[in-house]
Amino acid sequence: MGKLWGGRFSKSTDVMVEEFTSSISFDHRLYRQDIKGSIAHAKMLAKCGIISKEDAGLIIEGLNGILADMEAGRFQFDIALEDIHMNIEKRLTERIGPAGGRLHTARSRNDQVALDTHIYLKEEIARIAGFIYELEQAIIETAEKHPRAIMPGYTHLQRAQPILFSHHLMTYFFMLERDFRRLRGVWESTDIMPLGAGALAGTTFPIDRQFVADELKFSRIYENSIDAVSDRDYILEFQSFASILMMHLSRLSEEIILWSSTEFSFIELDDAHCTGSSIMPQKKNPDVAELVRGKTGRVYGHLMAMLTVAKGLPLAYNKDLQEDKEGLFDTIDTVKFSLTVYAAMLRGMRLNEKNMGGALAADFSNATDMADYLVKKGLPFRQAHEVVGKCVAFCLDQGKTLLELTLDEFRQFSEMFNSDILQAIKPETCVDARNSFGGTSPAQVGQAVAAARNIMSSQRKHLDMYAKTAL
Amino acid sequence: MGKLWGGRFSKSTDVMVEEFTSSISFDHRLYRQDIKGSIAHAKMLAKCGIISKEDAGLIIEGLNGILADMEAGRFQFDIALEDIHMNIEKRLTERIGPAGGRLHTARSRNDQVALDTHIYLKEEIARIAGFIYELEQAIIETAEKHPRAIMPGYTHLQRAQPILFSHHLMTYFFMLERDFRRLRGVWESTDIMPLGAGALAGTTFPIDRQFVADELKFSRIYENSIDAVSDRDYILEFQSFASILMMHLSRLSEEIILWSSTEFSFIELDDAHCTGSSIMPQKKNPDVAELVRGKTGRVYGHLMAMLTVAKGLPLAYNKDLQEDKEGLFDTIDTVKFSLTVYAAMLRGMRLNEKNMGGALAADFSNATDMADYLVKKGLPFRQAHEVVGKCVAFCLDQGKTLLELTLDEFRQFSEMFNSDILQAIKPETCVDARNSFGGTSPAQVGQAVAAARNIMSSQRKHLDMYAKTAL
Amino acid sequence: MGKLWGGRFSKSTDVMVEEFTSSISFDHRLYRQDIKGSIAHAKMLAKCGIISKEDAGLIIEGLNGILADMEAGRFQFDIALEDIHMNIEKRLTERIGPAGGRLHTARSRNDQVALDTHIYLKEEIARIAGFIYELEQAIIETAEKHPRAIMPGYTHLQRAQPILFSHHLMTYFFMLERDFRRLRGVWESTDIMPLGAGALAGTTFPIDRQFVADELKFSRIYENSIDAVSDRDYILEFQSFASILMMHLSRLSEEIILWSSTEFSFIELDDAHCTGSSIMPQKKNPDVAELVRGKTGRVYGHLMAMLTVAKGLPLAYNKDLQEDKEGLFDTIDTVKFSLTVYAAMLRGMRLNEKNMGGALAADFSNATDMADYLVKKGLPFRQAHEVVGKCVAFCLDQGKTLLELTLDEFRQFSEMFNSDILQAIKPETCVDARNSFGGTSPAQVGQAVAAARNIMSSQRKHLDMYAKTAL
Amino acid sequence: MGKLWGGRFSKSTDVMVEEFTSSISFDHRLYRQDIKGSIAHAKMLAKCGIISKEDAGLIIEGLNGILADMEAGRFQFDIALEDIHMNIEKRLTERIGPAGGRLHTARSRNDQVALDTHIYLKEEIARIAGFIYELEQAIIETAEKHPRAIMPGYTHLQRAQPILFSHHLMTYFFMLERDFRRLRGVWESTDIMPLGAGALAGTTFPIDRQFVADELKFSRIYENSIDAVSDRDYILEFQSFASILMMHLSRLSEEIILWSSTEFSFIELDDAHCTGSSIMPQKKNPDVAELVRGKTGRVYGHLMAMLTVAKGLPLAYNKDLQEDKEGLFDTIDTVKFSLTVYAAMLRGMRLNEKNMGGALAADFSNATDMADYLVKKGLPFRQAHEVVGKCVAFCLDQGKTLLELTLDEFRQFSEMFNSDILQAIKPETCVDARNSFGGTSPAQVGQAVAAARNIMSSQRKHLDMYAKTAL
Repeated sequence: MGKLWGGRFSKSTDVMVEEFTSSISFDHRLYRQDIKGSIAHAKMLAKCGIISKEDAGLIIEGLNGILADMEAGRFQFDIALEDIHMNIEKRLTERIGPAGGRLHTARSRNDQVALDTHIYLKEEIARIAGFIYELEQAIIETAEKHPRAIMPGYTHLQRAQPILFSHHLMTYFFMLERDFRRLRGVWESTDIMPLGAGALAGTTFPIDRQFVADELKFSRIYENSIDAVSDRDYILEFQSFASILMMHLSRLSEEIILWSSTEFSFIELDDAHCTGSSIMPQKKNPDVAELVRGKTGRVYGHLMAMLTVAKGLPLAYNKDLQEDKEGLFDTIDTVKFSLTVYAAMLRGMRLNEKNMGGALAADFSNATDMADYLVKKGLPFRQAHEVVGKCVAFCLDQGKTLLELTLDEFRQFSEMFNSDILQAIKPETCVDARNSFGGTSPAQVGQAVAAARNIMSSQRKHLDMYAKTAL
Repeated sequence: MGKLWGGRFSKSTDVMVEEFTSSISFDHRLYRQDIKGSIAHAKMLAKCGIISKEDAGLIIEGLNGILADMEAGRFQFDIALEDIHMNIEKRLTERIGPAGGRLHTARSRNDQVALDTHIYLKEEIARIAGFIYELEQAIIETAEKHPRAIMPGYTHLQRAQPILFSHHLMTYFFMLERDFRRLRGVWESTDIMPLGAGALAGTTFPIDRQFVADELKFSRIYENSIDAVSDRDYILEFQSFASILMMHLSRLSEEIILWSSTEFSFIELDDAHCTGSSIMPQKKNPDVAELVRGKTGRVYGHLMAMLTVAKGLPLAYNKDLQEDKEGLFDTIDTVKFSLTVYAAMLRGMRLNEKNMGGALAADFSNATDMADYLVKKGLPFRQAHEVVGKCVAFCLDQGKTLLELTLDEFRQFSEMFNSDILQAIKPETCVDARNSFGGTSPAQVGQAVAAARNIMSSQRKHLDMYAKTAL
Repeated sequence: MGKLWGGRFSKSTDVMVEEFTSSISFDHRLYRQDIKGSIAHAKMLAKCGIISKEDAGLIIEGLNGILADMEAGRFQFDIALEDIHMNIEKRLTERIGPAGGRLHTARSRNDQVALDTHIYLKEEIARIAGFIYELEQAIIETAEKHPRAIMPGYTHLQRAQPILFSHHLMTYFFMLERDFRRLRGVWESTDIMPLGAGALAGTTFPIDRQFVADELKFSRIYENSIDAVSDRDYILEFQSFASILMMHLSRLSEEIILWSSTEFSFIELDDAHCTGSSIMPQKKNPDVAELVRGKTGRVYGHLMAMLTVAKGLPLAYNKDLQEDKEGLFDTIDTVKFSLTVYAAMLRGMRLNEKNMGGALAADFSNATDMADYLVKKGLPFRQAHEVVGKCVAFCLDQGKTLLELTLDEFRQFSEMFNSDILQAIKPETCVDARNSFGGTSPAQVGQAVAAARNIMSSQRKHLDMYAKTAL
Repeated sequence: MGKLWGGRFSKSTDVMVEEFTSSISFDHRLYRQDIKGSIAHAKMLAKCGIISKEDAGLIIEGLNGILADMEAGRFQFDIALEDIHMNIEKRLTERIGPAGGRLHTARSRNDQVALDTHIYLKEEIARIAGFIYELEQAIIETAEKHPRAIMPGYTHLQRAQPILFSHHLMTYFFMLERDFRRLRGVWESTDIMPLGAGALAGTTFPIDRQFVADELKFSRIYENSIDAVSDRDYILEFQSFASILMMHLSRLSEEIILWSSTEFSFIELDDAHCTGSSIMPQKKNPDVAELVRGKTGRVYGHLMAMLTVAKGLPLAYNKDLQEDKEGLFDTIDTVKFSLTVYAAMLRGMRLNEKNMGGALAADFSNATDMADYLVKKGLPFRQAHEVVGKCVAFCLDQGKTLLELTLDEFRQFSEMFNSDILQAIKPETCVDARNSFGGTSPAQVGQAVAAARNIMSSQRKHLDMYAKTAL
């Protein structure tokens, strides 16, 4: 059997071209969505009287048979049939005869592949939202496991101020919370039904697009047929979402890698999440964190690829758009893997609280508190900053920390220092004192965790809603 | 006067380093936002008893004076003062003396610059939303000016099916509508107040962040201080939004350029939106469309730049993040310019309806309708497709169009053809027949325009809300 | 059997982590290079007395056996063994016993995988250089098939000046010639032998790196061991080369698509290089050109991905670098396919010379020649440009072309016009007159083709040299 | 005076469009190159008898006058005149009258701007090559200042094996050496003269392109006129070069930042290359290294922008290509700054050799040497690796290092251990033993430095050659 569009052609497709233009090597992933979509289409055609009920019955039975074959691994894909749609349609005709030829009435591959991709992405969004939720859960649990662990907070990778480890980790919760919100936006852009757009202009048959949308649990329908077949915004939005998410995980990865180094020694990862060296027997490498950091590049690359593909394309469908799938699929896989593995890794991670806290004994991360101390005694902040700067320089010169200075030494720099200064600049005091909303004090972090749990309750509702749209 | 952080340093900054690390050459753009933010901060400090009412009064008066100087062009920026914050603070101290040194109490440049950027971007989002609205308006008007203009619809840049020009143009309305929706998402991610996060951990002073948020008309407050200073998601979201928007405009640009070519001759741009050649006197070049298409690259590049900057950065603030601004500013300028110029260009564009319609007389874009004709007589679609394919091949061979075939010739290919076939495949019939929801028939396009007007009413409400948050 | 690095670990790797960190799913492609490299390494170890000749003999025999199994499809890869190196080494030990354990002496996977990738890329560069050569050949042949075909030259997609089709097409030859030159640069950056660097610092064994380089036909050796394992420049250079090459092909694709449109109708592609529509029986779509244009995005994306991966990585090896391969492999495949399919497509393309030339009869692309005519009579160019501009405006107003003006009409605009003006502005005259070096006159294009053939002779020598380094 | 191409137009350009399409705000940077190019063009026109010697004399004198005005800051640029070419040409005509109108004979802005950019980039390449040379010099000097400083070598940011600091630093020399080689390739792609291509097709005047090339010290001439005006490969090659260079500097930056942290404390930067904090008086931030790391994003972004711009553009010139300049200029500035500041920063950096070496006392980076020890006693490497792995696990459990084990303890793991084991695994021994070519032993590093000096001698010759082409 020749190509399904062969009527006008006098020569068959060059074999190399066939391989080049064929998409079956990757779009076979859409087989289930394609069949579900075709069943809904067939039902609609019958309901609207465009094909007979008998033909519709045959088609649906045939499609279900093909689906069963596929899930049992009994289906043989053929590269000469270009894509998943043609592979299925040809098999259908073999199974049920000419009635199979009626299925493609009132639709085109342009709106058909758009439909498949929309359904597929909705399903994956639901999964990914669940994985974000899981990772948030792991973050909260890990934060709560170490309520009083103090560590240096960094800016410019220089120690800045003492903070709670739980406060630091909760930062990632709030990043993920934004990722979840963005993903909800992607869902809305994806939850819109393209079928019925035909090749680009709609169809001459009296179809019922709302019926198809209801069957397939879509909330909305594309209001412009050209838009329906040429829109790839939802893919780009997903890739933007994924790029930002991976950027977040790359930051966490960088920290995990730093903290696992001998120099920091703040954490120890579980053996299950590390690998060794083929040559250096002592090595325990944080490979998972490195890979997630590295895979950020891949996800950025797919975003850039799709933006490039879409740039400057005239309406409506162009073959360039076939390039939308591989990058999307790989992005989905990468994001799912990264989220899942991270939830496990955080749960298996052990904290060296002693090293974290000990780090603070020998540094100057309490200098801001010393300045604040002077401000509270009445000195303008800029002058207080200057006084403390000189005091730090003195300590560096003398090989001392601020906590090791005598009161006399303090008072060389300002008469305002009193004996309460030492208490004021202990790491614990510093942390407790940052009790402004969103600050690092235990009270504030406790409130933040409570707020996070509330956010998760509301996310739960979205997850439930997504679950209800499963086909 | 030395650097405001000079206390700890024994050497002054290298001049070249000063120039390299200074941001005043671009962040001076934030001067108004910086001053408004500082005024709100000063009010809050006084309200909370952290500074005296007198000092607050002096500070606010001083800042207002500086603002007036700046808007009058009387302010001299100094590169040695690094950034907009230091330029203003130093001038303040010169004007009002030591009280100026109290302004920086309970804040850091980290949360201060975050605040400025949030305010700035909110204002620009409001403007850009307005420009999208304007362009949508221009699209609807242009569509309505030509209610019955028929043109070939294309897929693969091959003529596919006859469509209404207005249907084609309205595709861009629906793209922009999604852009507007995405921009609303960016607004939500931007409308969140970072001040009070201090350097990274909050502050030891009893501040009132809600007061500042209210003063500056923010809806929400960052719930985690580290997040507040290290979050750049809102910038990345804006750049993703802008990239997708520019991609849309690049597609429209490609079409404007094609349509302006001698070969298509579908439109003529107004002289005001074209330029000529220094050597070829006959040239009238669609430069604006080309430039918008080209500037898409710049906006993509800024997105990629910022994603790269943020990748793998440990918490909290790192100097790398200073790189967030230039790309953001240039993206804003490019998007505003492109939207504005496009609205004007569409309004000034003349349609050559004769060329558009005439194009259809000599092609085969009615072939699908011929297949549908046979399907409606009972032939399975796949067989109908085959019949018409052969018919087209026959025409190409004979140098005829389908409309030029005799009934006898038609019937060589199928007995099902009757005398009504010629009427069925006229371009006007083809267009009228695509009357499914979202299709190209005049009725459907009329409904789509009505729906678009409804959407715009709802957008109007968002624009009004944004206007109310202006400082 | 456990991991080969399991000694230090108390827990086995998590299965999901195993799948995440394993590279065997893609690096199995390097099997031949890995084995060739190991054989050279084993020979060297024996030659230097580091292992016995007997052990080396066993190892080499074992490796050749594994290679034969692999090429016969009899080898079973195991994901738990992480990568191609471990899969082979474990199988080797199963085949030959403990001697297999001596193969990894004095090397690490870090320098081993670098070696494999260098060998692999060299082989692919040789192939791609050959494909560029083939496409150049197809371009020259196509140009020579149509020595006098005249077409409009475009700037801004507006007709600018008449040119020879062969001149236009030869532009792509010169782009490809640059691509070839860049690829030679990539070869030089790739033709450098990393083995012997060990994990990062060299090895304590008395190895002979020059021997290995000679065995594997490398010209140079990495002079710094850390550089040898962390360098990915050669991959980035290849991806930059590939991005620019694909950009060139995307430009040619855009033109093929335009020329195939009904509006231009300058060419007809062979049926073998087009596909049809599932719904529109008349369609003949230039899918190959569209796909190549689209795949440009994919290649750009891989470049951006790898740049992102490498950014900010501390020395020496980091697991992130494992991400270098999939993008590289896909880039290689895409480039090879695109070059090959393009050579075939150009050879199968038919020119509609009548349409190309006819296009010129009705436009103003001879306006520059008219201005030059006046300049040669003594008018400053700027004034001549002005005169002709007015003349064109007059024609547009009157619905005439320049060739249709009477001498009287010409002279309304300048007294300098004489009866020779009509001859001076015929398309053929315009083309012949552009006889400056590199111009579009037949004489110049003939010289350019001759120069191109010379360039190809010199390229031939490089191809021969590459062939000699095959293993 | 109206636009220089206004003859055909009935309406003047919209002011906003004027601003949008004008390039004078950035291409004024090319003023010197534009004037030098015009002078060479005028000389050639006179030499070929296309304009009179008198006119040429007037033109050259006029242009020199304008150049003097510009360099003295006396020239007023006008945005309405679009670009640098028109700004200069109009001023020329004001100065010398109608003869000025003859300058544009036989050229177009398309080949003129290409010429300017080629000259400009050649000059900047010469400068950048010099800066790379300077940084290489700083690296060698810094390496030689610390010939025996030992530090841990890292893979996966885990300590791997002891190495010399000088060996580590020299890695960057070899990266820069490749950058220099790539830059030579960019020079070759840039050193090619486009003038004479006209708008796209060559010119009807009997010009002498070789004369212009000689005047402007170009080695080659574009052999195809269309290529000459549409080629942007040299810009893309430069941006690829710059992206890889910045990637290298981003890696060095990451290390500088790590080494400056309290946790590593391997180096101390000079105060001149750091900045402080507005709130934390103790901070000394490695801002320069952070900024260079951050600016990597900007350079990547410009590459991506230009690749996007060029994608899918039909021949020949399109206005999109005007977007080539700003990204190029910013890339040049960024690269020059980064190289210069890095040379100074390395020279000012102090090493804490005690911390570097001390780090090794307490880790397991000598484990590979222990395995090698066993291999040299006859154990297959894989078994030796296993033995040492268990030994490390024992130490971790006991809280010991390998150097703290007794011989009895060693022999619990293998009978092959003798009393020479302790000497064999001292850091100094480990470093000395890696004496294979390219390894970290002092002898090898000494040779590498000598090789580096040789490379620099050869680079010197290229710098001299570049200097000779200065205009």
